[in-house]
Amino acid sequence: MQQEKGLVAQLMQALQCLPGVGPKSAQRMAFHLLQQDRQIAKNLAHTLQDAAQLVGFCEQCRTLSEHPLCSTCANPARDRSVLCIVESPADVYIIDQATGFKGLYFVLHGRLSPLDGIGPQELKLELLDQRLQSGEINEMILATNTTVEGEATAYYISEMAQNHQIRSTQIAHGVPLGGELDYVDSSTLSHAFSGRHEM
Amino acid sequence: MQQEKGLVAQLMQALQCLPGVGPKSAQRMAFHLLQQDRQIAKNLAHTLQDAAQLVGFCEQCRTLSEHPLCSTCANPARDRSVLCIVESPADVYIIDQATGFKGLYFVLHGRLSPLDGIGPQELKLELLDQRLQSGEINEMILATNTTVEGEATAYYISEMAQNHQIRSTQIAHGVPLGGELDYVDSSTLSHAFSGRHEM
Repeated sequence: MQQEKGLVAQLMQALQCLPGVGPKSAQRMAFHLLQQDRQIAKNLAHTLQDAAQLVGFCEQCRTLSEHPLCSTCANPARDRSVLCIVESPADVYIIDQATGFKGLYFVLHGRLSPLDGIGPQELKLELLDQRLQSGEINEMILATNTTVEGEATAYYISEMAQNHQIRSTQIAHGVPLGGELDYVDSSTLSHAFSGRHEM
Repeated sequence: MQQEKGLVAQLMQALQCLPGVGPKSAQRMAFHLLQQDRQIAKNLAHTLQDAAQLVGFCEQCRTLSEHPLCSTCANPARDRSVLCIVESPADVYIIDQATGFKGLYFVLHGRLSPLDGIGPQELKLELLDQRLQSGEINEMILATNTTVEGEATAYYISEMAQNHQIRSTQIAHGVPLGGELDYVDSSTLSHAFSGRHEM
């Protein structure tokens, strides 16, 4: 291309920072944004600028929030005796939408991975320890990912709970609902067999 | 959801103005933007704001441009005797990338569609007429879409060229390269048959 790097080309480039957006989609998005009502594009730019500027972490659960306490932690209707441990703020959102969970969360922002230099300090587990010590919590639900590191993290945190005589549970792993056994990988299936229960 | 409409939720909502982005993708994008380096998100917001504010239409060819003349029209190396007529600014970009076309463009921003109230005025065909009248143009290439309205528009414009004794050509329609005949729709195939040429 002989064209100088104009604003349209810059926009196409910038849009490629979005997940799953390559050059072709970025091109379609750029033209779409500039051909429809410009107010929509300005609104997106404004919201994104505000969010990038103002959204930080909740002091209590470390999820994304523009206030010192996120709306979940600040909500008096939530059950303060149950704490769900997740790896990312996206997990908080997904669990809140999908389940009827009414307790609070703690976001690790990662998982223990000594080889990558991620230890208990990086996950701010001392903050979690303080909450466990407060005596407010009766049950801790572990909802880390089912990777080797996720499982190791869950194990480490469940031991922390044990030290405070707090019950720790883990979400069930097995065959997904609506899934055909044909399509389930063998380790999930073998896990589901060993974890079978009475009907 | 009990959560108040925070900035993260607003961002998810705003991202849905992008083509092909539904609630799930918008959610993934929002968390991705806020969890990586914030400078990337700010850069996107800034570029989008600038583009929405400053990008207008080229005075000569009506493609998107932040200058009165777009980089193609302003480029002295382009061949001023060939004019390609397209429906949208995206088409200019696609043709420039895919073909070796070195002439100029004219963007219609739509197609003639009397039922929708889109006539020659809406497509600024008087601007095109002025250019044809200038005597600079030897050939006009019609690259409108192969819809009924696109074809009618091409026919109307080719008559304008004829009035000025300017040669008008249309890009070839037929079986796409690398396409198997099995997958080609019957009207394309029948068009390709009637448009067969000597080898």
